Amino acid sequence: MAEGKDAFSHFQEHSVAEFFKKNRQMLGFSGKTKSMTTIIHEAVSNSLDACEEAGILPELKVVIRELGEYHFLVHIEDNGPGIPKQYLGKALGQMLAGTKFHRYVQQRGQQGIGISGVSMYSLLTTGKHPRITSSYKNKKLSCELSLDLKTNRAELLNLVEEDNPDGKTGLTYEAEFKDVEYKRSDQGVYEYLRRTALANPHASISITEPNGESSSFPRVIESNPKRPREIQPHPLGISAHDLLDLAHAQKENRKISAFLQNSLARVSANKVSELRTLVPDVDFDKEPSDMSWEDAEKIVQSFKQVKWIAPETDSIVPIGKEQIEKSFNNIFTPEIISVTERSPKIYRGGVPFMVEAAIAYGGGIAHAGKKGDMMRFANRVPLLFDAGGCAITESIKSVEWSRYGLKNFEEEPVVVLVNFVSVHVPYTGAGKQAVSTEEDVFDEIKNAVMEAARGVQRYISGKRKAHEIEGKRKAILRYVEQLSGDLASLSDSKAKDSLRQKLLKLVEEKYAALEAEENGESNSENGKRETGNGNGNGASEDEE
Amino acid sequence: MAEGKDAFSHFQEHSVAEFFKKNRQMLGFSGKTKSMTTIIHEAVSNSLDACEEAGILPELKVVIRELGEYHFLVHIEDNGPGIPKQYLGKALGQMLAGTKFHRYVQQRGQQGIGISGVSMYSLLTTGKHPRITSSYKNKKLSCELSLDLKTNRAELLNLVEEDNPDGKTGLTYEAEFKDVEYKRSDQGVYEYLRRTALANPHASISITEPNGESSSFPRVIESNPKRPREIQPHPLGISAHDLLDLAHAQKENRKISAFLQNSLARVSANKVSELRTLVPDVDFDKEPSDMSWEDAEKIVQSFKQVKWIAPETDSIVPIGKEQIEKSFNNIFTPEIISVTERSPKIYRGGVPFMVEAAIAYGGGIAHAGKKGDMMRFANRVPLLFDAGGCAITESIKSVEWSRYGLKNFEEEPVVVLVNFVSVHVPYTGAGKQAVSTEEDVFDEIKNAVMEAARGVQRYISGKRKAHEIEGKRKAILRYVEQLSGDLASLSDSKAKDSLRQKLLKLVEEKYAALEAEENGESNSENGKRETGNGNGNGASEDEE
Repeated sequence: MAEGKDAFSHFQEHSVAEFFKKNRQMLGFSGKTKSMTTIIHEAVSNSLDACEEAGILPELKVVIRELGEYHFLVHIEDNGPGIPKQYLGKALGQMLAGTKFHRYVQQRGQQGIGISGVSMYSLLTTGKHPRITSSYKNKKLSCELSLDLKTNRAELLNLVEEDNPDGKTGLTYEAEFKDVEYKRSDQGVYEYLRRTALANPHASISITEPNGESSSFPRVIESNPKRPREIQPHPLGISAHDLLDLAHAQKENRKISAFLQNSLARVSANKVSELRTLVPDVDFDKEPSDMSWEDAEKIVQSFKQVKWIAPETDSIVPIGKEQIEKSFNNIFTPEIISVTERSPKIYRGGVPFMVEAAIAYGGGIAHAGKKGDMMRFANRVPLLFDAGGCAITESIKSVEWSRYGLKNFEEEPVVVLVNFVSVHVPYTGAGKQAVSTEEDVFDEIKNAVMEAARGVQRYISGKRKAHEIEGKRKAILRYVEQLSGDLASLSDSKAKDSLRQKLLKLVEEKYAALEAEENGESNSENGKRETGNGNGNGASEDEE
Repeated sequence: MAEGKDAFSHFQEHSVAEFFKKNRQMLGFSGKTKSMTTIIHEAVSNSLDACEEAGILPELKVVIRELGEYHFLVHIEDNGPGIPKQYLGKALGQMLAGTKFHRYVQQRGQQGIGISGVSMYSLLTTGKHPRITSSYKNKKLSCELSLDLKTNRAELLNLVEEDNPDGKTGLTYEAEFKDVEYKRSDQGVYEYLRRTALANPHASISITEPNGESSSFPRVIESNPKRPREIQPHPLGISAHDLLDLAHAQKENRKISAFLQNSLARVSANKVSELRTLVPDVDFDKEPSDMSWEDAEKIVQSFKQVKWIAPETDSIVPIGKEQIEKSFNNIFTPEIISVTERSPKIYRGGVPFMVEAAIAYGGGIAHAGKKGDMMRFANRVPLLFDAGGCAITESIKSVEWSRYGLKNFEEEPVVVLVNFVSVHVPYTGAGKQAVSTEEDVFDEIKNAVMEAARGVQRYISGKRKAHEIEGKRKAILRYVEQLSGDLASLSDSKAKDSLRQKLLKLVEEKYAALEAEENGESNSENGKRETGNGNGNGASEDEE
C-alpha cells in the first residue's frame, strides 16, 4: 500500500436495502415528478395484482395532498384481500420478500422490491413511518411501519387489532414524502392512472389531486380478465442450475424420472423414455437429490433435441383487441385503428410471452397534438420512463415507417401502443420501466408493430399521396410567373405570355399524369405488401 | 380468494444473489457478446482500482480461450496487492460485500456486486467454480470459489496456502462461461480494452484472443494518476437520514457539535456557531446518539442557509487534456481535436463530479468510417451499452450541432468523448452502463460538450462551407447542358450554344459572389460566437 494503510480495513457487508438507498435512482427515485409517479406505480400495481389474484373487481382510491414545498401525503386504498399480520411488515417494508418473485405466473409485480422501496423513500425523505390499515378476513389491523435498512427488516409499531365483522377486506397505505412533486405532465401520476385505466378496463380508479379536484376512471368491463394460469417451467426454458436446484429442493418424488414429469411442463413418461435414449449415461431412476451438475447439464441438453409442445398459452392474458379499440376510441377518437391478435411466443428458450400492438392515426390524435407517440405497457402496467433503452421503443424506431405511408413518423399524428405480456418481463432495471432488448423479444415486438402498421397502411398512404401531389402542384405553379419572365429575358424573346401559357400547360399535364400514375402504383404496391388486414395471426405475417 | 387458496402460502424471502440470478440482464448478462464484455469489464475495473489504491502501476493480462460453441475460458491476471484469505470469498463471490460501497472516493467499482455477478454467471452457465490465485503480502493462496446463491455466501474449496518469498503480489481469476461469444465488434472485449487503454494510459494491458492472436496496449505514462482523495460527505450533499445514521453509529465524539466538525467536510467551529443561531431549538451539546429525526432534519435544513466552501476538488481526478489529445492522436490521427478542462461541479446538492469532453474531427476518423460517434466513460471506465438511456448520449444529442458547423452530426466524421468523474456515479442500473439523467449532471455534460465544440467550430465551418459551395456549383453545371437545350426548344430559338454560354456565365458569376460572401460571413460569425478556444474554463463558457 502506498500509505501503508490496508484497503481491506474498509471491508463491509451491506443489505439490499442499503444498496437501493444509495442507488435509489435504480428504483425510479430520481427527479421529483418521476419519484411521485414511482410511488403510485408501485402501490397501484400491487393493489391490482392482489385484487385479481383474489378474484375481486379492483376499486382503487388515490388521494394526494400537498403538505409543503415538495412535501406530499399519499393515501392509497384498495378493496383487495388485505395482508395478514405475519406478512404485513415483510410485504410492505422488506426488500426481496413476497409472494411473486419465484412464481411462473403473469403479474405486474415480480420482484418483491417495489412497495418496500416506496416505504424506504418515505423514511429517507421524512423520517416518518407509513401508516397501514389491513382488513384481512375477520381481522382489521392498523399500524405504522418501521424499517431498519441496515438489516432490511420491518417492524409493526402501535399495532391495533380489531374484529372485522362485515368482512369488507382491503389495504390502505398512507405515507408522507419529501423531494417529490405533483404535476399533470406526460410522466405524472394523472397520466399514469389514465393509461392504467386504458389497459385495465375492469378496474375503477379515482384520484383526488392536491388542488382538491377529484376525477375518476370508471370501470368499463364488469368482470376481471381471465386469470392467467400459474405454470411450471418449460423444459426449453430451464437452465441446468435451476434444474439442479429444483431437484435438490423437492421431496415429493423419489426418482428423477418422476421429478421431471411432476416439476416441468409438457414432460410425459414417453418424453422421459426419449430422454433416456438420448443420454444413456444419466440414471433417471436415482434420487433427484443425487442429481449431479453433469446430469443436469446433460438432461438440459437432451431437452433441446426433443420435440416439445409449446408452453401453455393460458399463462398469458392480453388486454384484447376489442378492448384496446374501445379504449383508443374513448381517448382519441382517431380516424383509423389497427390492433393485432398474435399468438404467444417464447424467449430464452422457454419463457412464454405475447405482444399486443395497436396503431391509431389522425382525428383526435392530431387534435391532441400527439406526434409519433408511443404508449408502452408490460403486463398492463404503463411504462412512462426510460424509453431510450427499452426494446419496445427500439423496435418501433427500427420499423421502416415509410413503407407504411409514415415517412416522418415523428411528425405524424400517430400513436403506437405495445403491451408486452409474460410470466417474467425481462426489465432492464429494478425500477421496471424498460424491457430488455433480448433478440426474440425485439423481433416479435417489431413483427407485431409491422402487422398493426399494415392495417393502417392503405388508408394513410392514400391520404398522404393525395396531399403530397397537391402540394407539389401548388409549389410549381408559384414559380411559373417568375420562370416565364426569366426565360423571356434569357432567350431575348418578348413572348413572356406565350411562355407562361406553355409552362402552365406542361405543369398541368405532368400533374395529371403523376396523379393517375401514383394512384395506380399505390394500389398495386399495397396489394403486394398487404398480406393481411392487420388482424390476422398467420405465420406469413411474421416475415419481413 | 377465488379458488380458496391463499396467495400468502407462496410467501418467501430471497437473497440479493437470487434476485440477480433471475434478473441477470440487470448486471449486463443479456446477449452473448455483451455478457463476455461484462465479464472483462468487471474484472478489469477491479484490477485497476486495486492497483491504483496500492500505488502499483497496473499490468493486466487477459487470455480468452474457446472451449466449445459459446463456451469460453477467461483468465485475468493482475499485479495488484492481492486479497487476504479472510476476504477472498466475500470479495469475489458475495454480493454487496467489499471495500468500496460506503466510501466517498473516486473508484471504478462502487457497488460490491460486479465480480460476484461474474462468478455467479460462471456457476449458472457451467456449474463450475472459478479458480483463484491470490498473492497477498507473504502468502500465496490458490483455491476454487463455491457460491451459495440462496444465502449469498461464498466458500473457498481446495485451498492451498504457500509462502510467497519474492513478495510479488497479484490476483489471478480464471473461470469458464457458457452462453457467451467472443467477437471483435464495437461492443466486444477488444474494443472495451482499447478504450480502457485510451482512458488509462498508465496501465499496460495485453490480450490473447481465442484465435491465439496476442495484442497489447502498452503503457504510455510511467506513473499512476494522482490518487483521488477520500473525502467526507459535504453538508450540502447529506440527507437527514444519513446524518442520523452517522450520528448514531459513531463513537468518537460526545457532542453533536464535535461530531459535525469531524464527520463532515468544511464544518468548522465558526460554522457550528452559525448553525446554532439558525436552529436555536437543536441542542448541539448533547450526545450524537441522542440526535432525533427532527434534529437531523433541522440541521440539514440549516446547512442550506449557510455559505459553504465547495467540496474538495482533489477528490476528483480527470484523465487530463494532454492525455486525451495524445490518446486521440494515437488512435485516430484526426484533423483537429478540442478538449475541455473544466472545474468540478456538484449534483444532488453536494456530490462532487467533473466532466471532461473532447471532440475530434476528420482525418483518420473518416478513414475508420466513424460517423457521429460517441465514446462514453465514467471514472475512466468505457461504457459500451445502454447508450439510449444515458445522460451522456442525451446531452450530446441535445446540442444544436448546426451551430458548430455539424448540421448532420450523425453523418459527419466526428467523435465526441465524455468522461464523467465522481466519488459516486449515479448509474441507471447495477450493470453500470449508463449515467442517470439528473438535471445538474445533464446540464454540465452539455456545457462541456458545447465548450469542446466551440474549439472545432471555426475549422469545421470553413471546411464545410467550401465543400458545400463547390458541391452546389458542380450540381448546377451538370444541368446547364440539359437546360440550354430545353430553353432553346421552349423559346423557339435555335440559339442553344449561345444560351449555354449565357447560363455558364451566370452560374460562374453567382458562384464567385457566393464564395466571397460566405467567407466574409463565416469569419464574422465565428468571431462573434467563439468566446473561448475550447480550452478555457471561465464562467462565461458555461452560458448557453
